[in-house]
Amino acid sequence: MKNLTDTDKAYIAGFLDGDGSIISQIVKSKDYRFGFYIRLSITFIQKTDKNWFLNNLKDQLKFGTLRDRNDGFSEYVIVSSGPVEFLLIQLLPYLKIKRRLALHVLKIIESKRNINNNKLLFIEACSLVDETISMTYSKKRSITKEVVVKYLDSNNIQ
Amino acid sequence: MKNLTDTDKAYIAGFLDGDGSIISQIVKSKDYRFGFYIRLSITFIQKTDKNWFLNNLKDQLKFGTLRDRNDGFSEYVIVSSGPVEFLLIQLLPYLKIKRRLALHVLKIIESKRNINNNKLLFIEACSLVDETISMTYSKKRSITKEVVVKYLDSNNIQ
Repeated sequence: MKNLTDTDKAYIAGFLDGDGSIISQIVKSKDYRFGFYIRLSITFIQKTDKNWFLNNLKDQLKFGTLRDRNDGFSEYVIVSSGPVEFLLIQLLPYLKIKRRLALHVLKIIESKRNINNNKLLFIEACSLVDETISMTYSKKRSITKEVVVKYLDSNNIQ
Repeated sequence: MKNLTDTDKAYIAGFLDGDGSIISQIVKSKDYRFGFYIRLSITFIQKTDKNWFLNNLKDQLKFGTLRDRNDGFSEYVIVSSGPVEFLLIQLLPYLKIKRRLALHVLKIIESKRNINNNKLLFIEACSLVDETISMTYSKKRSITKEVVVKYLDSNNIQ
């Protein structure tokens, strides 16, 4: 990733604007103190006959996982705050359509970093995730801040 | 278009690779000597709430037409050999997924230029258009070289 040129970054920004996704979501998991965690990812999907392209992109970026799904499509996913933050900062000067969303996701990453097991700060970060619903064409989400708050209350988690 | 920087070109190439179309097709029209003509275009489609993006792109490229369709999408189309050739040559150093198709379309443009009312050369150019079917995910086309040849024969066009 160190050696991305400006035109590499601009190209990837254009591709992400056109056909990639920047996703933030609240995911249920008992492994986490609050019963949920915030998952951030950047995803690129192409027909499997073009997975050479995703493979080259992965070689260039040096992180993330690529898999051929069984529906004729391949999926390259970069998950977790570190890589997502790093990539978005590189692309930010060139992003257009997803620029606002990228900035918002950088804000979520910053909030996550400050949670330190503080329930209110976690709820606040969930609220930021909810705000991305209006910035994307994602379908109605089942897990929102409301769901998290109800769960925390009913399980008496402090 | 003169002032596109390298990162502008790389960005547009990335966006075209991700979400744009390079289209070549044989179109029926009695206005033309052979009853058909070859139409070349580059098309970008976005939901109308993002037509600001297409509008900026059009301002940058200085050609093509942008219209809001009545299905919630907006369409920016650059038609005809001159602008298509000019743009593809600018983007060629950066295109990846559509690089092979772009080169092929440049070849079609070159062939078109040499037709000069020569029927065999026109048929040859139609044959090049047919070859793009395997390079894209376009649906089965109704007008192929075969259709053109039959029409020319049955109408005794020399």
